[in-house]
Amino acid sequence: MNKDSEFSEWYTNILFEADLIDSRYPVKGMYVWRPYGFKLRNLIYGILRKIMDEEHEEVLFPLLIPKNEFMKEAEHIRGFENEVFWVTRGGSEELDVPLALRPTSETAMYPMFKLWIRSHADLPLKIYQIVNTFRYETKHTRPLIRVREITSFKEAHTAHATWEEAEEQVKRAIEMYKKFYDELGIPYLVTKRPDWDKFPGADYTVAFDTIMPNGKTLQIGTVHHLGDNFARTFDIKYEDENGEHRFVHQTCYGISERCVSAVISIHGDSRGLILPPKVAPIQIVIVPILMSDDERAMEVSREIERLLTSKDYRVLVDNGEERPGAKFYKWERKGVPLRIEIGPRDVSERRVTLVPRDTLQKRGVALDKLLEEVEQEMKEIEKRLSQRAWKKFRERVRKCEDLKEAREIVGVALLPWCGEEDCGKKIEEETAKDLLGEVVELRERSRCIICGRETERTIAIAKSF
Amino acid sequence: MNKDSEFSEWYTNILFEADLIDSRYPVKGMYVWRPYGFKLRNLIYGILRKIMDEEHEEVLFPLLIPKNEFMKEAEHIRGFENEVFWVTRGGSEELDVPLALRPTSETAMYPMFKLWIRSHADLPLKIYQIVNTFRYETKHTRPLIRVREITSFKEAHTAHATWEEAEEQVKRAIEMYKKFYDELGIPYLVTKRPDWDKFPGADYTVAFDTIMPNGKTLQIGTVHHLGDNFARTFDIKYEDENGEHRFVHQTCYGISERCVSAVISIHGDSRGLILPPKVAPIQIVIVPILMSDDERAMEVSREIERLLTSKDYRVLVDNGEERPGAKFYKWERKGVPLRIEIGPRDVSERRVTLVPRDTLQKRGVALDKLLEEVEQEMKEIEKRLSQRAWKKFRERVRKCEDLKEAREIVGVALLPWCGEEDCGKKIEEETAKDLLGEVVELRERSRCIICGRETERTIAIAKSF
Repeated sequence: MNKDSEFSEWYTNILFEADLIDSRYPVKGMYVWRPYGFKLRNLIYGILRKIMDEEHEEVLFPLLIPKNEFMKEAEHIRGFENEVFWVTRGGSEELDVPLALRPTSETAMYPMFKLWIRSHADLPLKIYQIVNTFRYETKHTRPLIRVREITSFKEAHTAHATWEEAEEQVKRAIEMYKKFYDELGIPYLVTKRPDWDKFPGADYTVAFDTIMPNGKTLQIGTVHHLGDNFARTFDIKYEDENGEHRFVHQTCYGISERCVSAVISIHGDSRGLILPPKVAPIQIVIVPILMSDDERAMEVSREIERLLTSKDYRVLVDNGEERPGAKFYKWERKGVPLRIEIGPRDVSERRVTLVPRDTLQKRGVALDKLLEEVEQEMKEIEKRLSQRAWKKFRERVRKCEDLKEAREIVGVALLPWCGEEDCGKKIEEETAKDLLGEVVELRERSRCIICGRETERTIAIAKSF
Repeated sequence: MNKDSEFSEWYTNILFEADLIDSRYPVKGMYVWRPYGFKLRNLIYGILRKIMDEEHEEVLFPLLIPKNEFMKEAEHIRGFENEVFWVTRGGSEELDVPLALRPTSETAMYPMFKLWIRSHADLPLKIYQIVNTFRYETKHTRPLIRVREITSFKEAHTAHATWEEAEEQVKRAIEMYKKFYDELGIPYLVTKRPDWDKFPGADYTVAFDTIMPNGKTLQIGTVHHLGDNFARTFDIKYEDENGEHRFVHQTCYGISERCVSAVISIHGDSRGLILPPKVAPIQIVIVPILMSDDERAMEVSREIERLLTSKDYRVLVDNGEERPGAKFYKWERKGVPLRIEIGPRDVSERRVTLVPRDTLQKRGVALDKLLEEVEQEMKEIEKRLSQRAWKKFRERVRKCEDLKEAREIVGVALLPWCGEEDCGKKIEEETAKDLLGEVVELRERSRCIICGRETERTIAIAKSF
């Protein structure tokens, strides 16, 4: 199946066939993580956690937010009111105060920030949690991409003395997210969302988008400067060095399990998954090709397994009953980065065959060089996956001369834009695409594609998930 | 504060003062895990996860269960109907089907078991997840002990070909839980709950109870044999070797964050926490005692930190501004198992002072023996904590001659019992205690304390949380 032209079917199939997710759970937009998928999730979130742990502390807040707290921030509630699930009953009783299933945790956390923050010595405060959050999606749902239960929302929240320090944190967060996606080999475009599309309650929002195989963009991370908006609502103040009480300035930034869907979709091919070695639940599968009752291939397999396991590789020896071809097919589908085949002749020659999942090019290797060769090959696979993904991504991000070209492009079109909402909306209409945001790093003199005013701004547009 | 006689205050204070839990979240029975508490939780659950991973696969199911699935098993729903939170609204719309916040996941998982299990080759199926679950508690709530959001429910679910194989799994689960609590040094009594107190929908329930400092028991784990009750409700069948379709037999077993409350409560003392080294977020705190501007104690501290960190100890050098006494007090309260003090004279003599948290007995150690001494001391601390806990536990579990003695005992009373519900209820009334269950491992000829019939059964009773 062609991943690009039939992406939707490809995606649905691979989630099921690689045992990642079961979509048959009887509630719309809610899915079951199967063991293999959950291991992949954990390895990906392990990388994210490690990056977060460098400067945040992990906490865990309750899921349920009382309506009165949730309704305090006017813009915030306007942004979410149509998307919130409400708990209204406990047992057979009506609750006095309905409880929201967190769509995000600002209104759960910030009443506690008010208690925790007293003086400048308590700042900056940087925490994060990885939790389930909920959105009452009315649109078409799709596993890991558009869901009603986000099972794995990593949300970080910080508080600072000044607006500028919060802005500094926004920049740091952007760097952290770049590092995270670089480790996964996932390309991204960073844009500043237009004012009318920012996070409800934020001063501004910066977003990460990647491009999925069908050319649609997927938002895979957001970073928000909250200014002192929430601090004023929740009365979060600190005493500065001069004894004055001031509102804190805040940021928050989040990544959901869309990061997993990006890894699946962007690296995979028509045969199935291709997992970067860092996050592959099984990094190396060893397939002994047994002839009659010659058990030596099996012995060598175990020897190699011990060797590679001792170096902390995640290894599996497939000694099942299936024919080798069926095994190859199964592990290719599941995206195991490296296969080692051991045939009967290999045994006597102390050789094996390496088959990297991405190129599928077979290569003979002497057993006593195996460890170095595997190490090298793992690095190469990672590099090739990242390079291939970025190459395709760059081909799909194009500066356009006119609206017609922008309309026809599969991927992201870049256009000069004056910054006005009217012109932005017009671009969306004329191209039948969504405005992602301003590419802040790309400034050059030009004229707005709509009104012709001079501008240095570039807007990115695309069909988006 | 005396931990035993004023347990309730002690517990509330220590959760707050050791930065474990913040109880000020504005919903009854829901609490915030602060960073130090969350690290402790993760280390404890890391042990549990490792034990589970030996024979289960970790998965993740949705939180919300549609009412129609939830209501299928009649006994199960009778057991939970007064305790379930219901989501009835999404945005401003009334939901067609109300959704239950899982109180436990049988009814979420078993419809999927029906899809996953086809033949005997799919059995046994063993999975677990660690998730948040919910109970609409109307009684007095208490952090980690009686809560409305169980933030960290480890629930395992298995399916087997026969009732006997499921019973075998029950025994294995009991062994796994013993191993877990042995690693934490937490004593337990294993009893078979009486029929009228078993898990709703189970054939029988085995439970783990420990004794808290005030003498009340705390249920810290349960293991259920579900027979084919849920299999019949959810139509979970497999094809056996002869092509016959048979219902599976199931078990489930769970542990909640009560395991954390047991570690806090049972090992702590009047000064605060005493954490077993395995689960202490900080295992060793180094306190340099600085004189004037002599920085040598600091240098030695860093040297020791490097040494111990290289051996994977979790170490902190406290080089803050406070006086040493204040530092000692702070880290004792937080339960750090081992303190290393370095005074100015120690530096020139290449010596340090070790202070284990449990005994607080100071001991001089030569720097070049430090590593072995620390290793040894850590083992000793762990052993002492476990022994001390078990000693106290055993003193509080007593065979009683009559109901009066049983009524007066602080802890668990053991009595001969015929097995009849009438006599059981009478024992509860007469002693003003709760019937925990039958101590299966303790069988000896005697006569029921109520009706005088001959019996080999022993019942355990106690005031329980």
